[in-house]
Amino acid sequence: MTNSSNKRKIFNDPIYGFVSTPFEIIFDLIEHPYFQRLRRIKQLGLTNLVYPGSLHTRFHHAMGAMHLMGLAIEEIRSKGHEITEDEAKAVTIAILLHDIGHGPFSHALEHSIVNNITHEDISQLFMDRLNIEFNGELTLAIKIFKNNYHKKFLHQLVSSQLDMDRLDYLKRDSFFTGVSEGVISSDRIIKMLNVVNDQLTIEAKGIYSIEKFIIARRLMYWQVYLHKTVLSAENLLVNILKYAKELAKNNVELFCTPPLKTFLYNQFSKIDFTNKPELLDAFALLDDYDIMTSIKVWTAHTDNVLSMLCKHLVNRKLFKVEMQGMAFDKIKIEKLKNEIKKRLNLNDNEVNYFVLSGYVANDAYRGDRISINILFKDGTVLDIAKASDQLNIEVLEKTVKKYYLCYPK
Amino acid sequence: MTNSSNKRKIFNDPIYGFVSTPFEIIFDLIEHPYFQRLRRIKQLGLTNLVYPGSLHTRFHHAMGAMHLMGLAIEEIRSKGHEITEDEAKAVTIAILLHDIGHGPFSHALEHSIVNNITHEDISQLFMDRLNIEFNGELTLAIKIFKNNYHKKFLHQLVSSQLDMDRLDYLKRDSFFTGVSEGVISSDRIIKMLNVVNDQLTIEAKGIYSIEKFIIARRLMYWQVYLHKTVLSAENLLVNILKYAKELAKNNVELFCTPPLKTFLYNQFSKIDFTNKPELLDAFALLDDYDIMTSIKVWTAHTDNVLSMLCKHLVNRKLFKVEMQGMAFDKIKIEKLKNEIKKRLNLNDNEVNYFVLSGYVANDAYRGDRISINILFKDGTVLDIAKASDQLNIEVLEKTVKKYYLCYPK
Amino acid sequence: MTNSSNKRKIFNDPIYGFVSTPFEIIFDLIEHPYFQRLRRIKQLGLTNLVYPGSLHTRFHHAMGAMHLMGLAIEEIRSKGHEITEDEAKAVTIAILLHDIGHGPFSHALEHSIVNNITHEDISQLFMDRLNIEFNGELTLAIKIFKNNYHKKFLHQLVSSQLDMDRLDYLKRDSFFTGVSEGVISSDRIIKMLNVVNDQLTIEAKGIYSIEKFIIARRLMYWQVYLHKTVLSAENLLVNILKYAKELAKNNVELFCTPPLKTFLYNQFSKIDFTNKPELLDAFALLDDYDIMTSIKVWTAHTDNVLSMLCKHLVNRKLFKVEMQGMAFDKIKIEKLKNEIKKRLNLNDNEVNYFVLSGYVANDAYRGDRISINILFKDGTVLDIAKASDQLNIEVLEKTVKKYYLCYPK
Amino acid sequence: MTNSSNKRKIFNDPIYGFVSTPFEIIFDLIEHPYFQRLRRIKQLGLTNLVYPGSLHTRFHHAMGAMHLMGLAIEEIRSKGHEITEDEAKAVTIAILLHDIGHGPFSHALEHSIVNNITHEDISQLFMDRLNIEFNGELTLAIKIFKNNYHKKFLHQLVSSQLDMDRLDYLKRDSFFTGVSEGVISSDRIIKMLNVVNDQLTIEAKGIYSIEKFIIARRLMYWQVYLHKTVLSAENLLVNILKYAKELAKNNVELFCTPPLKTFLYNQFSKIDFTNKPELLDAFALLDDYDIMTSIKVWTAHTDNVLSMLCKHLVNRKLFKVEMQGMAFDKIKIEKLKNEIKKRLNLNDNEVNYFVLSGYVANDAYRGDRISINILFKDGTVLDIAKASDQLNIEVLEKTVKKYYLCYPK
Repeated sequence: MTNSSNKRKIFNDPIYGFVSTPFEIIFDLIEHPYFQRLRRIKQLGLTNLVYPGSLHTRFHHAMGAMHLMGLAIEEIRSKGHEITEDEAKAVTIAILLHDIGHGPFSHALEHSIVNNITHEDISQLFMDRLNIEFNGELTLAIKIFKNNYHKKFLHQLVSSQLDMDRLDYLKRDSFFTGVSEGVISSDRIIKMLNVVNDQLTIEAKGIYSIEKFIIARRLMYWQVYLHKTVLSAENLLVNILKYAKELAKNNVELFCTPPLKTFLYNQFSKIDFTNKPELLDAFALLDDYDIMTSIKVWTAHTDNVLSMLCKHLVNRKLFKVEMQGMAFDKIKIEKLKNEIKKRLNLNDNEVNYFVLSGYVANDAYRGDRISINILFKDGTVLDIAKASDQLNIEVLEKTVKKYYLCYPK
Repeated sequence: MTNSSNKRKIFNDPIYGFVSTPFEIIFDLIEHPYFQRLRRIKQLGLTNLVYPGSLHTRFHHAMGAMHLMGLAIEEIRSKGHEITEDEAKAVTIAILLHDIGHGPFSHALEHSIVNNITHEDISQLFMDRLNIEFNGELTLAIKIFKNNYHKKFLHQLVSSQLDMDRLDYLKRDSFFTGVSEGVISSDRIIKMLNVVNDQLTIEAKGIYSIEKFIIARRLMYWQVYLHKTVLSAENLLVNILKYAKELAKNNVELFCTPPLKTFLYNQFSKIDFTNKPELLDAFALLDDYDIMTSIKVWTAHTDNVLSMLCKHLVNRKLFKVEMQGMAFDKIKIEKLKNEIKKRLNLNDNEVNYFVLSGYVANDAYRGDRISINILFKDGTVLDIAKASDQLNIEVLEKTVKKYYLCYPK
Repeated sequence: MTNSSNKRKIFNDPIYGFVSTPFEIIFDLIEHPYFQRLRRIKQLGLTNLVYPGSLHTRFHHAMGAMHLMGLAIEEIRSKGHEITEDEAKAVTIAILLHDIGHGPFSHALEHSIVNNITHEDISQLFMDRLNIEFNGELTLAIKIFKNNYHKKFLHQLVSSQLDMDRLDYLKRDSFFTGVSEGVISSDRIIKMLNVVNDQLTIEAKGIYSIEKFIIARRLMYWQVYLHKTVLSAENLLVNILKYAKELAKNNVELFCTPPLKTFLYNQFSKIDFTNKPELLDAFALLDDYDIMTSIKVWTAHTDNVLSMLCKHLVNRKLFKVEMQGMAFDKIKIEKLKNEIKKRLNLNDNEVNYFVLSGYVANDAYRGDRISINILFKDGTVLDIAKASDQLNIEVLEKTVKKYYLCYPK
Repeated sequence: MTNSSNKRKIFNDPIYGFVSTPFEIIFDLIEHPYFQRLRRIKQLGLTNLVYPGSLHTRFHHAMGAMHLMGLAIEEIRSKGHEITEDEAKAVTIAILLHDIGHGPFSHALEHSIVNNITHEDISQLFMDRLNIEFNGELTLAIKIFKNNYHKKFLHQLVSSQLDMDRLDYLKRDSFFTGVSEGVISSDRIIKMLNVVNDQLTIEAKGIYSIEKFIIARRLMYWQVYLHKTVLSAENLLVNILKYAKELAKNNVELFCTPPLKTFLYNQFSKIDFTNKPELLDAFALLDDYDIMTSIKVWTAHTDNVLSMLCKHLVNRKLFKVEMQGMAFDKIKIEKLKNEIKKRLNLNDNEVNYFVLSGYVANDAYRGDRISINILFKDGTVLDIAKASDQLNIEVLEKTVKKYYLCYPK
């Protein structure tokens, strides 16, 4: 940051106050249409139907995670560990772009329209494309992102159970939803970061903050991310898109933006993305606006099922959801389907778009992944699951599964 | 609120914590598609291009203003002034619906597409329509809204220089932009509310809060609402829509959602809205999504001017803005236009969409409107402009005008 | 609150914004010297030596708990349960005065100077005295406080595992220490309050907030209330006072304020307090100032041990603390004492004031007390320990014990 | 900060989250008893009698100002201006110690007991003493503090109309009082700092923040610092101390801590402080505790006037205050005195301790001091008074004077 060029820009963030761009290339990447697209993709999809404040975007989240990365780099350096300027730039690029492949309502899309390729795959494709445009300047960033760089702790800052991604999104999501229980002390946690044997660790006095972080994450899952009305809305969206795709296969004409048409009327695999560069270009034009606008128009479609489903979403007449610890009785579901079929005048195929069941699962902490390590004053390093004498992390490690059943009221 | 019906609902608000619906009809109005539409209209239009957090909607603002109204009613009642349950319900409905007629990017639309009718007109049309649907239950609310009710202070709670609308939007806009200078103490101001001779007044010890409120409002104007980059973006949007309308007149085909098509390819006046009820229905389908989606598609339109303008907006390559206290020299503007014409290969008409000048104005306090009255302990009531021995309110009353000039970099 | 008397007063609270006095008698009680005394007693004793912001007083806490009581009353009433005006007044008085018997650095005093009577005993004595002064107006409040009133849920609002006391102090302590992990959503919890079979319950959708509350409380214990440096400071204070009491017994002259002299140079039992009304008057004059000022003067006392101990506290040269899960080895302690004896030139008795060991314990949730009950939609009520399918409350019920050893560095 | 020594310590601050000590000597200075004393001196004296949360100390403020200094140094360096490590250390020391000479209730003391020497004088004496103890390591800091160093902008960071002192205290005082109107964006202002011709300047886009800062400061003056009840309390304190001093002159025995005795029973001038080093040692033992404890004891003094005055303060029966723009009529004051004399049975001298009049004054901005300079993009630098086209700074420059009259109710 020696030269105060024109490319050092400050962004306002209601959470951190100010976020500034630490490297010129960061500024250029933010300016790129691929990244600007993230301004039009909400971080939490349809969650705003329950928490009206949660309209924040993946753009804002990426900026926030980049900001925390700067603090983490400074902290780790101050504890005597080397991070070169090139590494700092690369790890900052990596966190900035970690979500660039997300489509609108990612999970909904991945389960309906663009279903043979994950957002992680697309992130990689975008990074490779940008690396060419930027003459190889992203090579080290991509290496770190893919965990191919020898300093493993750099990758852990980008992707692990305590990465800058999580530290930002928990804080941001709880801020914008107003669910104050989810507030975490990202700055406190960062102050406790250290590196031992090339592994990210947390100094022992940060142990309560980590426990709190794990608990907060679990609460955010059940209170926000897997909130039953959010589930209901997202399932409805998946079904709308699945049904639209079915209509598209049958050549029914549907109002669509051009990029949505590309993906709705065709079926592409991961290999197609590699072979046809124009597919990535089409994807780069797709955002929340294409989906919601089309659904709004479909509320007036002559296909009654499509129109009904879309009205439920647009006018927020969401399906009722039941949730329980055990799978729902199949007979109950059949009975319900019969009732709905009659009530709404649907056939055997159509009713499946109105009555849906499944499960969601969450484990607060994954002992089988790269663990969160606690560094004690005597140099010992222990997995949080062992270091915490209080919290029964083993319980938190258990996957909690909840079954749901959605249907029109 | 004696009976805890199912229609008492709680909304999360990151600002007030919780907002609950005080009357059954409020719940029903919120559920109505007309009101749900406000979920898709951002309070601050394109401001998020400068302040990425400011994605909050008119829906959320209306809920917040309703919440403050509840506090104000309670406060005024506690000071011995009668507000009957019917009046309370009516004034709450009035504030909830005060902005229901806003279209997407209101001001942009009013200056381009729907240009013979204001959002206030449309709010009234919506209220009248809802009053029919709700069997006359909105009659008193409409009376208060139009200032036809004999208790004038109720109207002032809805619309005056210190109404619940302003108290919420200043707080909300500063929260979501992160411009902490704009933070006002809405709860403190409400605690100071009183009524004298049927006029809303502020008790004398609240005088500093009012001064602060006036200053904060002025700062929000120049730092947010009239921020030069925001102006640049909004002017660009106006020009895109104006140009699209011109193309539409020439029967050029443009990708459009059906309600946008209605307004883009036709010219309606206020009388048309009254005569053709379906026009209001079409308007009720129009929101931010229609506009932005169309503009995104237009980036690939064969008309080069349209495509250029749209790319500037979508990829956030906004025009450069100069701002100054005096009007720009006409010769300078002409020279600039010639240069841009050559550079971008435009004709005399087209260049006007790329080089634009005008002015914005703001007065922090309007002495000629219903004034903000301060109630002293001895019973005297004084206009804040006279009551404040410190702040030069007369200066704040002066309209500040700033001239701008926008053009591509 | 029909009449807006002069006795309706508003207090500023950085946490709740405004706190107002709901009844005239509340105003009068606050004005009473017994209550004003709480302005000079810090809520967290010596914790400010670790968290410099935590200087808030029992006065402020009592006001905050009173404020929350008002919200709770309103909420419970809105759910159809009767709380008469007299009951509302009484329960508000009860919470306002619940801590009035606290002396300065309560626990320190209870373990050194005033050691045969608890602060709960003294609270009752103060309430009885005030009840006489206020002509019996506190009778119902005292009944509720002692849990002798037939509506048990009113007592639970004052004292239970989810009372207004805890809801305020956790929030307040985390606010002023800056330990954001302790932040609880007291307003959210209050919105979930209900009454079933005369028991306070929490509606099922508040279950995560309750889990969070239990976790936050546990974290506050270990991070703040039992923070090892705080323990070190408090133990040092206890030892200073014990040693001073020993000197007093030997008629050594010590600088003292008159009320401190009363308690330092005499030994009183609970019965004495009942028999000699002037003792309560003396106690009513005792606050943080008496203690700290005397200790400051004692830093220059000719008794070397006293002077040394006091300098450690006043200049914040606190003893080193070791903490561990098991009791410390007696041989280790003996060795340490010998070393310190030599180093500081102390005798066998004196060294015990410099080397001290003991344990602290905390259980996050007590299943054996009045449990926290969760009310499900179907009317079922379950103890949180059974209702929470996620959190291992049984683990949290286990008392966690930590042993400490303090000694000069 | 290359080496993570034991002396790098982190403090919790509810405002900034964490504050860390950037240099070893900073840690050592904080540990020094002179600095620890500031833990026992409240920043806002008796203001907590009005705003119960404002118990924060000069210790905490000094730490906060030090924290902001770190941010300012970083910002200015990032804009290409050199600040050497030695200068950074010195300017940080200077801000840390800028208030070290404050006594308890400074202004009260300066107007009663220690009245021939200002706290600024004593700060210098303390710094000189510490410089000796620290072997000259404070020499540069003292030079900057006294504005004897050639880089003038460093002194301006410590003392000017936009120094780190003000940026911290406004933010801190508004935080702890809960007067949200006073909140300033210290971080935003610091991001706008620059240096031109060795003068601290603010970049033009920070102009609204500066206007807001000036307004906020003015509001804090009238709402907090010069709040009439605060004035009443402080005047009462001054009178208690003056009266006690009078009694001391007459050899009346008064309960006193030793350092208070020193200053109460003697009269020292600035020269005495220079000649008798033990005087500074005595002063270093004096804090809020000495004053308040003595006053508490004096409530039972046999001198009726002293006892009455002290009871008014301790039990918060503060004098009534009238405030107005003009001086009070002398006849009115005389009449009032006669009435009080009779009512309280006082003589001609004594009544002056019960009826007091005077004025307070504040100017929001001082054009005659080192001005706040705004740096425009074209390099122009303008005084804010000229740069602001909106705010009538000239009005704010006018000294506002308010006259008060206090007397027992």
